Amino acid sequence: MSSKPRNLFTYASAGVDTDALATGMRGLLDWIGKTREFREGPGAFETGSGFFASVLRLTDQLALAISTDGVGSKSVVAQLAGSYEGIGYDVVAVNVNDVVCVGAEPVALVDYISIQEPRADLLAALGRGMHDGAARAGVAIVGGELSLHPDSLAGPRPGYAFDATGTCVGLLDRRAPIMGAAVAPGDVVLGMASEGIHANGMTLARRVLLGDPEALTRVVPGLGHTIGEELLRPTHIYVPEVLALLRAGVDVHGLAHISGGGLLNLTRLEAEVGYHIDALPAVPQVFDLIREAGEVDIAEMFRVFNMGVGFCAVVPPGAVADALAAVRGAGGDAQPIGVAVAGERRVEIEPYHLIGSDGYFQEQAI
Amino acid sequence: MSSKPRNLFTYASAGVDTDALATGMRGLLDWIGKTREFREGPGAFETGSGFFASVLRLTDQLALAISTDGVGSKSVVAQLAGSYEGIGYDVVAVNVNDVVCVGAEPVALVDYISIQEPRADLLAALGRGMHDGAARAGVAIVGGELSLHPDSLAGPRPGYAFDATGTCVGLLDRRAPIMGAAVAPGDVVLGMASEGIHANGMTLARRVLLGDPEALTRVVPGLGHTIGEELLRPTHIYVPEVLALLRAGVDVHGLAHISGGGLLNLTRLEAEVGYHIDALPAVPQVFDLIREAGEVDIAEMFRVFNMGVGFCAVVPPGAVADALAAVRGAGGDAQPIGVAVAGERRVEIEPYHLIGSDGYFQEQAI
Repeated sequence: MSSKPRNLFTYASAGVDTDALATGMRGLLDWIGKTREFREGPGAFETGSGFFASVLRLTDQLALAISTDGVGSKSVVAQLAGSYEGIGYDVVAVNVNDVVCVGAEPVALVDYISIQEPRADLLAALGRGMHDGAARAGVAIVGGELSLHPDSLAGPRPGYAFDATGTCVGLLDRRAPIMGAAVAPGDVVLGMASEGIHANGMTLARRVLLGDPEALTRVVPGLGHTIGEELLRPTHIYVPEVLALLRAGVDVHGLAHISGGGLLNLTRLEAEVGYHIDALPAVPQVFDLIREAGEVDIAEMFRVFNMGVGFCAVVPPGAVADALAAVRGAGGDAQPIGVAVAGERRVEIEPYHLIGSDGYFQEQAI
Repeated sequence: MSSKPRNLFTYASAGVDTDALATGMRGLLDWIGKTREFREGPGAFETGSGFFASVLRLTDQLALAISTDGVGSKSVVAQLAGSYEGIGYDVVAVNVNDVVCVGAEPVALVDYISIQEPRADLLAALGRGMHDGAARAGVAIVGGELSLHPDSLAGPRPGYAFDATGTCVGLLDRRAPIMGAAVAPGDVVLGMASEGIHANGMTLARRVLLGDPEALTRVVPGLGHTIGEELLRPTHIYVPEVLALLRAGVDVHGLAHISGGGLLNLTRLEAEVGYHIDALPAVPQVFDLIREAGEVDIAEMFRVFNMGVGFCAVVPPGAVADALAAVRGAGGDAQPIGVAVAGERRVEIEPYHLIGSDGYFQEQAI
């Protein structure tokens, strides 16, 4: 293991203590876990505990995938910038990207927006962003809740504090859920590019990049736009690419949305294998900015951020060409970034000498 | 119309301005409404816009109901009292009660909990409450999201600020959604008792009853417990009663969860009829306390609170006996509280000389 000292910023020191969260979560999950048995027959839980989406069995032929997620503290950056449309898009993106991971076709979404005060500009922008996200994902937004919390929400722009989350449902019609059980050593990991930071690691990014109040509106050479605009770029919606893979008949063994936890999300796939990543695309400049400004350890960077890869599909070697063609046919892009390897469930990132498992990366000779 | 002046507290003056909310909401809904067309075929939106739950058509035989809701500012009272279990129960209750309104059988729920800090006692209590609610409703909690918001949540107990919401899905198997279109003049409105304030009108209740910091722990003669305990009583889950009605083959014409908006929720049923309410059960003491302490207008009370009736079923006169027997067989209780009447879509509450439509009640000779 590297003897390099931990650097200034970790995700915990920047305000999101994921270890304490894990402890608190156990008490919650102990109770929730017992509820699985409360439903039998149509609608019973089939699989997906701890996975990107949960699957309910409806009929012999039909299953429902469901997932819920929010945009986290990206809403704070949006308030600082007074720019909300991308957050609406993200509400759709973070959920449809999770639902499609089980191989389901997302069909509908409901949103939950809590606001400090009713602001017409905020709400219209969120609505427009959700509309645009729904258009790309091919889902209808069929319901939602708008909830006023004047006493319990606070933010940098008075009256504009808000949180935005959604729940997406998708259908699996005559198709078994893809939970990653089929992944085998030798399978190829295809990485699809992210559009920057997406909606994860925003707390750390804010502390590092936005400590200076002027920073938000400073144009960064090379980026060609301000840091605020960079952080608020909407999360890419990978639904067209993934549905193209499935419709082309590609033998997809595993699908992983690279959100919080970065490439460690690959270890959520069911197969007991490791992943050797050796051909990452160039790390987008925003991550270099964060790393340098905060002196953030590279292991921490890969744990918190997507580092340029927002979604992975794992396919057998013989299916790579068809898979790449299908993704490109849907207007997307993907490239082989590594392979599944025999051994324990971990992720090795060769170019950065990182080995990760159980939620952490460490620098190590590989 | 009564010439009585508006009294001290209205819901708007107590912090939740539902008119400004309505304005802001239009901008949001204009965009959301356009997304309906983004999905055709299996999973397409069928009905339920503005209703308690939305319905998606899955197959000729099967439809999915979906609804999302939170507990509003009841979480603030829970923080004041340091008592969170009932809120977990409410997360389930407010959603399953909405889904069952279309005649669907609730099958699963996902939760979204945002917290200021990870507190094991808070999370375990929420989990236990959700477990108990899920047990009564017969739903599995199949997924969820726990999100840390250290910078944007604030509340009266440092570190314990939180918001809790859920999304419930239910199934309609070889049964048309019950949207209230069949309600006809002469139909009988059956009211099922609430268990106090449930999760609506909490902002007004807090301002009126909890202005004095000692008030929360003061035992109220007649209630037999403290105001805090009264306000935190969990929302009754009406799923067993309603499923009993449906399974008994009662010809149910309409179902309404009496949440925010009180008995005006009856006007959400599709039929163009009015409702004449003439036999309300005794108003629970907590509402008298609020009315007296805040000098709240009776019209405002009926607009904001359930006033003792938490759920209504509308049935033809010939089905009343079977309906009451079915509800009682499920361990519940109901009583005829009024009838549907020809005319415009409004609610008359005879004992209080109230006529309500478009979201408001007014005192008026009936």
